[in-house]
Amino acid sequence: MTASDPRVGDLTEGAVLRGILERLPASGALVGPGDDAALLAAPDARVVATVDTLVHGPDFRLAWSSSYDLGWKAAAVNLADIAAMGARPTALLVALAMPDDTRLSFVEGLADGLRAACDALAPGCAVEGGDLTVSDTLTIAVTALGTLDGRRPVLRSGASPGDVVAVAGTLGRAQRGLRVLFDRFTDAAGTPVPVDESVLSADERADLSVQLRPAPPVALGARAADAGATAMMDVSDGLVLDASRMAAASGVTVALDSASLGADATSALSGGEDHGLLASFPAGVPLPVGFRAIGEVRPRGADPVIVDGRPFDGRSGWDPYRDWDAGRG
Amino acid sequence: MTASDPRVGDLTEGAVLRGILERLPASGALVGPGDDAALLAAPDARVVATVDTLVHGPDFRLAWSSSYDLGWKAAAVNLADIAAMGARPTALLVALAMPDDTRLSFVEGLADGLRAACDALAPGCAVEGGDLTVSDTLTIAVTALGTLDGRRPVLRSGASPGDVVAVAGTLGRAQRGLRVLFDRFTDAAGTPVPVDESVLSADERADLSVQLRPAPPVALGARAADAGATAMMDVSDGLVLDASRMAAASGVTVALDSASLGADATSALSGGEDHGLLASFPAGVPLPVGFRAIGEVRPRGADPVIVDGRPFDGRSGWDPYRDWDAGRG
Repeated sequence: MTASDPRVGDLTEGAVLRGILERLPASGALVGPGDDAALLAAPDARVVATVDTLVHGPDFRLAWSSSYDLGWKAAAVNLADIAAMGARPTALLVALAMPDDTRLSFVEGLADGLRAACDALAPGCAVEGGDLTVSDTLTIAVTALGTLDGRRPVLRSGASPGDVVAVAGTLGRAQRGLRVLFDRFTDAAGTPVPVDESVLSADERADLSVQLRPAPPVALGARAADAGATAMMDVSDGLVLDASRMAAASGVTVALDSASLGADATSALSGGEDHGLLASFPAGVPLPVGFRAIGEVRPRGADPVIVDGRPFDGRSGWDPYRDWDAGRG
Repeated sequence: MTASDPRVGDLTEGAVLRGILERLPASGALVGPGDDAALLAAPDARVVATVDTLVHGPDFRLAWSSSYDLGWKAAAVNLADIAAMGARPTALLVALAMPDDTRLSFVEGLADGLRAACDALAPGCAVEGGDLTVSDTLTIAVTALGTLDGRRPVLRSGASPGDVVAVAGTLGRAQRGLRVLFDRFTDAAGTPVPVDESVLSADERADLSVQLRPAPPVALGARAADAGATAMMDVSDGLVLDASRMAAASGVTVALDSASLGADATSALSGGEDHGLLASFPAGVPLPVGFRAIGEVRPRGADPVIVDGRPFDGRSGWDPYRDWDAGRG
């Protein structure tokens, strides 16, 4: 590599931070980055807070994800968790642990991805603090904060029999994108190789985009709350698995209609990582634009989730990373 | 190991979470752990937020630190950052990335340490959320949130010529404790070996305790703010280095008096990781109990920090981890 793209291990923390901060959106905080802590407005005297981590190996391969993709995804998955409470994201804190030989350009790309995701998915939300450390394993832990703007929080536990079950955002595309990566972009030894989008169909490219740069419908979280959503969560681990969590928290059964799930209902039911919003609404309430009905809430039966009236017999998730022994790539 | 102490990789995330949550203090949040995000009170419509990470290798060795120690330290260093703004910590979010073969008892010890640090240093503060992931490298990223209870935040930038410079908490002990570890508890090959406290003097044990389980004066942050502190920060990287940051932010020179720093002024000046509070107060203001004067603020001169009237010629920090190539241990 060139002297113009130094290793972060050869730079001071301050120099790395400057490279990051100048690429981030302007601080909207009362006290932004640079002091011991940030100070953020919490207009309704409450703050919503969540943290989620991307780890090299279990969560991504560097052959497949650019640093821009990683910054985008690390922001997006956390913004979705804030939205799932019915809230509006206001700030991110980013704890970045990376090997000494990480290039400054990589960190800058990550900052660009964080900024782009905030701008696209949650305008007004900015990175207001963080932490840089050295690690053998590239790790991006993002804390997202948000405000309910006076709304009641929408929990997983509020679904009642008779409610309509609805989703916003894509379902199953991220899983199909992951299959594209594992099926098309590994060599004979199973090692990840760089993605060449020119060999993919338009649909495959779209699936891959959702896997690498998910675009959860963040703004619809608050709209769902305003429309009277009784329960909500983001679909991170697969529709059936996440719906079963909502069912357990609410003491109900979620009955899904596979005909409402598009041409590839199997992926929609089992695939995670799209980070769409799963919500329940009282029957008769007009669904907010962007939500579509996919089932209904019933009194608790033998199974937390049923599909077309029967227990779901497919796999409730698909995670090749978990058992995939091909190192980090 | 025994079946009664399973590997976390053999457990569901839910089972690991239960093992953690039952050891943590009761949630004080409006919505605690278990939903997509936590909802916390922010009584004065502002929230203070910070994140700091401990990484296996650069930040700790498992031969030296128990999981209890790591939980304690991960909490303490973040509580200190909240205190340094003049705030009171209210909640932690813990992102824990760990190898599959980590034992459940290790995670339980970590939860015990988190709890003990909150109880001892910031009563009322609890772990209100988090994230568990698999990683080759044990990594503990803690986000701390806090409230100013209506106070103005105390920044690094507010020191004015004529102010008294004061500290609360120990200085230099953590560095001496680190020397004890590297000097006394490595084998001939330089590999860390378990600590045997029985071979240590009472002073060495005290130093070691500050290194492994720092006890920053968290409650004094708000008291310093109430007493009129003009600037404040926590001493994490060494007194001279951190004072130079305060000096730069404030556009002043910090003049320290080594005679005020105890018998081992060298360690006090260069040693980090005690996480005491460095603050400036207007001259004539009674210092809050727990603070002691160590110098004064002067108009900006040639050096950001002077000691006994001269530029500091010692090393401004000592971090054997940085260049120490003995693996993780």
